[in-house]
Amino acid sequence: MKKRILLLGATGSIGLQTIDVIDQHSDLFELVGIAAGHKAKELKQILDTHNTIQAVGISDVSKAEIFDSIKVYSGEDAMCKLIQDLDYDLLVNAVVGFRGLKPTLESLNKGIDVALANKESLVAGGVLVREALKRTNTKLYPIDSEHSAIFQCLQGNRKEDIKRLIITASGGSFRDKSRDELTHVTVEQTLNHPNWSMGKRITVDSATMVNKGFEVIEAHYLFDLPYDQIDVVLHKQSIVHSMVEYNDNAIMAQLGSADMRLPIQYALMYPDRLCLKEDKPLDMTKTLQLDFKEMDFVRYPMLKLAYEIGRKEGNLGAVFNGADEQAVELFLEKKISFLSIEEAIQYAINTVEYIATPSLEQLENSDRMARKAVLSFAQSAHSLD
Amino acid sequence: MKKRILLLGATGSIGLQTIDVIDQHSDLFELVGIAAGHKAKELKQILDTHNTIQAVGISDVSKAEIFDSIKVYSGEDAMCKLIQDLDYDLLVNAVVGFRGLKPTLESLNKGIDVALANKESLVAGGVLVREALKRTNTKLYPIDSEHSAIFQCLQGNRKEDIKRLIITASGGSFRDKSRDELTHVTVEQTLNHPNWSMGKRITVDSATMVNKGFEVIEAHYLFDLPYDQIDVVLHKQSIVHSMVEYNDNAIMAQLGSADMRLPIQYALMYPDRLCLKEDKPLDMTKTLQLDFKEMDFVRYPMLKLAYEIGRKEGNLGAVFNGADEQAVELFLEKKISFLSIEEAIQYAINTVEYIATPSLEQLENSDRMARKAVLSFAQSAHSLD
Repeated sequence: MKKRILLLGATGSIGLQTIDVIDQHSDLFELVGIAAGHKAKELKQILDTHNTIQAVGISDVSKAEIFDSIKVYSGEDAMCKLIQDLDYDLLVNAVVGFRGLKPTLESLNKGIDVALANKESLVAGGVLVREALKRTNTKLYPIDSEHSAIFQCLQGNRKEDIKRLIITASGGSFRDKSRDELTHVTVEQTLNHPNWSMGKRITVDSATMVNKGFEVIEAHYLFDLPYDQIDVVLHKQSIVHSMVEYNDNAIMAQLGSADMRLPIQYALMYPDRLCLKEDKPLDMTKTLQLDFKEMDFVRYPMLKLAYEIGRKEGNLGAVFNGADEQAVELFLEKKISFLSIEEAIQYAINTVEYIATPSLEQLENSDRMARKAVLSFAQSAHSLD
Repeated sequence: MKKRILLLGATGSIGLQTIDVIDQHSDLFELVGIAAGHKAKELKQILDTHNTIQAVGISDVSKAEIFDSIKVYSGEDAMCKLIQDLDYDLLVNAVVGFRGLKPTLESLNKGIDVALANKESLVAGGVLVREALKRTNTKLYPIDSEHSAIFQCLQGNRKEDIKRLIITASGGSFRDKSRDELTHVTVEQTLNHPNWSMGKRITVDSATMVNKGFEVIEAHYLFDLPYDQIDVVLHKQSIVHSMVEYNDNAIMAQLGSADMRLPIQYALMYPDRLCLKEDKPLDMTKTLQLDFKEMDFVRYPMLKLAYEIGRKEGNLGAVFNGADEQAVELFLEKKISFLSIEEAIQYAINTVEYIATPSLEQLENSDRMARKAVLSFAQSAHSLD
């Protein structure tokens, strides 16, 4: 029996790599449903080359009509309807942004596991997701090089034997700059990541270390460990994808090439591994310089903030994420400066009302309020228009 | 219920560290029996401080009399008799040399698992041990930093997903010397290991790479993998204790401090881990330079020989080990040169008759014949008295 995959965010980078994995292992997987936000043409291409697909979802209603020969769901609820109606074995949630949270909850509530690339499900909705996992006895499988590495390092070990998780951070575009040097950095400089070519938002989030802060919160929910047991170290070579230190001082590390199909495959086939084709393995017969450096919370206040927000829970993760999405957008539009991203986020955290045990609706509202707060911060600080 | 431990080789380095682990975790372990070759006084000291011990074994008959208030076994069969008569849950075999093989087989045949520090059980007797493991459905737990690291890296993974084991080698005392420079090296230079202070034989075996060859053969039997899937890389910092590369190109590595109590604890409590006290954990917030370099079989012919011997099986491992024990002894006595160790071993391999499926008695005989061959090689080559 093939594993039936429902893939959300099919036209994005993780989505397309997931399809590559499914195609390379068509004896094991079957793509039964796909969804995307608005890239209808790309979605149609996937549909045309995968006759196992039973239904598609597209958020942009105006683009639904090109799917004439297949069941199509459109509009804001497209992904959730797809989840409700389709028979599948694993949801791959590769949606970008806060709107990925609802489908994660929907699948868990249906009793079906989720391979998760959508950070916001845990950053913004961790409390709700944790509750759903517990209640439905479902599982999350991380699709993210750091969390996949930790997940691999945890195999065969008891939770009580863990001393700490060590998430590695490349340091982003400005890792060699002091805070003083950040005042006038440009969008172009920010998008020039030393190690990876990634999407714009995540590249900015790497430079502000918001992304690493998100990963700390994700790790907390994925592995059910207190924040005291989650550390971040700077590791600019990005060869060690992350580590786990145990109480006997053994450090288990996962290293290797940086192909995202590896964590995708591991999440799809856990606990088994698959061959990874067309990849260049790390050469273990040459000198590897691996630098590790303690994180500086003064240099990276967003990482410090992430720990505080993570510990306080409630709706703060949704505010943090919503504010960051909005602030990065403004930065990319050159409407606020690089350092104002941090100020705007902090402003939103201070402004939006704290809710200790929010509902999904309250999280959605917190997300909206956070964006609004950032816009008003930007307007007053820089008098836009 | 405490785990009852029978410890052979109690007065050696691994033996004493095993006792340290047992003492630190006296809520979990109980030392019920100890044995040693001839260090009766040291054995008595352990007995006096551990009132859980029910019997002792000492190979040297002349030293048995000091144990007046406890059941004592003496002579060549002391260890096997102890195994037969005592009730215990795990044998820790920390005996040095070929004579460790028989107790390993004895315990497996009794149906009791073995935590194995005795390399010779597998190098010389691997075929018999494999057969005993299969027949009795017992397990071996490696006590050796390299094999323990690999064992840890294998947890939660399927055998068919393994691409290869990567054993790291420090390179020994002469890793920066060419073969030409080895002609006149002294015993003192050989015993000056750059990374560790260890016993004399293993320090010489590190310099000749015989030790790493032994570890390749051990890995073959411990993890039931063909030699094609067992590689060695030079890694002079000895921070990465060994690695496993999987078919998806993920490399799992175990690194950390070099305290031998870690693999001892892991073998004793597998799959659980224990706190390791009085140890200095590896600092993961500083620069680590990790050099890796391909092994050169021309520079290290003994490693090449180990692969050949491993593949041919039979009595060759026993000959290899016996010849090495004898040759190293002669070298330490300054009766043969450093490079003659290799020649003597090769001479023994060529001289002693090959037996494809040897019995234990035939292995014992091969061991004797190998030592004899080395002595006669030394005599003819250097005309010893």
